[in-house]
Amino acid sequence: MHDSEREGGFVIVTFTDFGREGPYLGQMEAVLAHRAPLSRVIHLQSDAPAFRPRAAAYLLQALLAPFPPGCVFLCVVDPGVGTARRPLMLRAGAHWFVGPDNGLLLPAACSQGAMEARVLRWEPPFLSQSFHGRDLFAPVAAMLANGESVPGDPVQPDALQGWDWPAALWEVIYVDAYGNAMTGIPANSLSDAVVLNLADEHIPYRRVFGEVGPGVPFWYRNSIGLVEIAVNQGSAAERLGLEVGSPVGCAG
Amino acid sequence: MHDSEREGGFVIVTFTDFGREGPYLGQMEAVLAHRAPLSRVIHLQSDAPAFRPRAAAYLLQALLAPFPPGCVFLCVVDPGVGTARRPLMLRAGAHWFVGPDNGLLLPAACSQGAMEARVLRWEPPFLSQSFHGRDLFAPVAAMLANGESVPGDPVQPDALQGWDWPAALWEVIYVDAYGNAMTGIPANSLSDAVVLNLADEHIPYRRVFGEVGPGVPFWYRNSIGLVEIAVNQGSAAERLGLEVGSPVGCAG
Amino acid sequence: MHDSEREGGFVIVTFTDFGREGPYLGQMEAVLAHRAPLSRVIHLQSDAPAFRPRAAAYLLQALLAPFPPGCVFLCVVDPGVGTARRPLMLRAGAHWFVGPDNGLLLPAACSQGAMEARVLRWEPPFLSQSFHGRDLFAPVAAMLANGESVPGDPVQPDALQGWDWPAALWEVIYVDAYGNAMTGIPANSLSDAVVLNLADEHIPYRRVFGEVGPGVPFWYRNSIGLVEIAVNQGSAAERLGLEVGSPVGCAG
Repeated sequence: MHDSEREGGFVIVTFTDFGREGPYLGQMEAVLAHRAPLSRVIHLQSDAPAFRPRAAAYLLQALLAPFPPGCVFLCVVDPGVGTARRPLMLRAGAHWFVGPDNGLLLPAACSQGAMEARVLRWEPPFLSQSFHGRDLFAPVAAMLANGESVPGDPVQPDALQGWDWPAALWEVIYVDAYGNAMTGIPANSLSDAVVLNLADEHIPYRRVFGEVGPGVPFWYRNSIGLVEIAVNQGSAAERLGLEVGSPVGCAG
Repeated sequence: MHDSEREGGFVIVTFTDFGREGPYLGQMEAVLAHRAPLSRVIHLQSDAPAFRPRAAAYLLQALLAPFPPGCVFLCVVDPGVGTARRPLMLRAGAHWFVGPDNGLLLPAACSQGAMEARVLRWEPPFLSQSFHGRDLFAPVAAMLANGESVPGDPVQPDALQGWDWPAALWEVIYVDAYGNAMTGIPANSLSDAVVLNLADEHIPYRRVFGEVGPGVPFWYRNSIGLVEIAVNQGSAAERLGLEVGSPVGCAG
Repeated sequence: MHDSEREGGFVIVTFTDFGREGPYLGQMEAVLAHRAPLSRVIHLQSDAPAFRPRAAAYLLQALLAPFPPGCVFLCVVDPGVGTARRPLMLRAGAHWFVGPDNGLLLPAACSQGAMEARVLRWEPPFLSQSFHGRDLFAPVAAMLANGESVPGDPVQPDALQGWDWPAALWEVIYVDAYGNAMTGIPANSLSDAVVLNLADEHIPYRRVFGEVGPGVPFWYRNSIGLVEIAVNQGSAAERLGLEVGSPVGCAG
């Protein structure tokens, strides 16, 4: 990714469950500005499913398409604060992925083609108990964006968490501000005739919101290529009692 | 706008009702970083009045003053998801405006002097049903920032939605986190003696918050040049039951 | 700070209580892009304790470590809208600090070593009553980032608000989205044996969340070096009735 003709500096993309509030995102961006002063930082998402690396992983995978080649994805979602797991850097396709070995990076990296995985051996000058995003993963992302090599031990991809996860996650993985519920199901894997089953209700396919009456739930192919459950002029999450992790079934 | 001496790259300014949550702003910024790697992106506002292009239009107009010449304003507020309307690019004064033909761009563009309007004829490689901001408007904004020409059909400004909208909108157009209610009335169009009428109450002018007792509503000239309704140490929205679209009258 | 070898432009860091919502941060960023087109802007925190410059001051001080040398910190937290106070620029260590003379800048600036303080004498072309952040402080921050000199009257640091504030503030200064309560007490000033007293409860030290049972309050050293009150799998703020300003005592 370090073609010197690349204009505009390298792009570092954050994907976390830290929220926009508080100083957390700003602290991480300070490290990036310090160690990779020529980089461009994009906060892709800061409300990834909190403490749910598996749901977050399927969401991340669906968000890669519009990014230019040569991005460093700096991803942090952990099941709890200070959870023990290996820190990873993965090279896949034209991108780097940096984050915890809890499955978060796997669907995204696997979707990019051949993968080279390393467990980080780089040790930061200071490592807090509760903020590896700032102290460990951000410096590594910055170094990779700079084209520096970062010490790490090669590891077989099939030894990583998430390697054996299925191509589709039949669960709700994100609920947006309007109560639309994204699932981990690739939209092009289902035909229009498929009827889904959520909360004991049959949910048919509709192409757009306008094709159903107010208050009626349906599924459609959303803008990031996932099956999404919606209610015209209403909240699907409220109407059907959905939250991250709610199971999605197939009624036929 | 493409003077090659311009330092620091071109500025693309987003103005949307997408919210900061979710991946939507990040997806759009990915497109901008991809297609206009030298641009600078400013998220002016992400909580523009949702589904209310007319209110949003008067707000946008009031926000232009501090921007440098040569910005590309990338604006998306639609009355509903996937609403049919023509996509526009307007050149007005030293700026470009890109967005839907629903009035959103008109007050702002008209305020900048002579306007050149085009209906976009550029077709994106992929156009989702529900995310024209990412698939259509963002690539166009990026191309304009790059100085590339974008295919479009000239259209007379008076054929555009919003062309005949009045200079002042006597409605609440935005309620901020403190419950202050902005109106679409230019502040310098009213004398200090004007008493407004909202929710059957008489609202006098005061220069600053400190000039009234706690809990008393008043209007003042806000920092973006609009008439704003406030309550000292309280929420005007709550006290007077205001929301976007609430009418503002003149009591004398 | 104006070494011409500095790559990537200068960094301007905002620290405000404006919130992410509304056009306020975007208006300020427009000024920065206009006057300092080569600068990089980081929004460190936008939900600093609202109207509480003292609490915000101790928070700011704790957030400086990861920033590169040569930042301009643009800080706005005032006890009320349009409060009268002197506008300051301070040079301390390798940084500049710009903001109101209400104590907000002092702990941070003092922590950086020798300080040179000036009361701003620069007058903006337009100064609104309610948005000095955009009209006064942002242009000054931009000029300093550019290496331009800004007119100001030297003032002795000990004549500034906050000069005599203690090294530790035994109060809650920030409550995060999970209900963890940061205090203004430097974490390395307390030994592990110290038991704190909040809301008439004894709060012992624990190294990490996992060391106490669910629902049990404890204090720990947080990632920005402050004493923080937390509850495992719960909200300390709710459990103990804490908010910004709640006193913290020492039980032994």
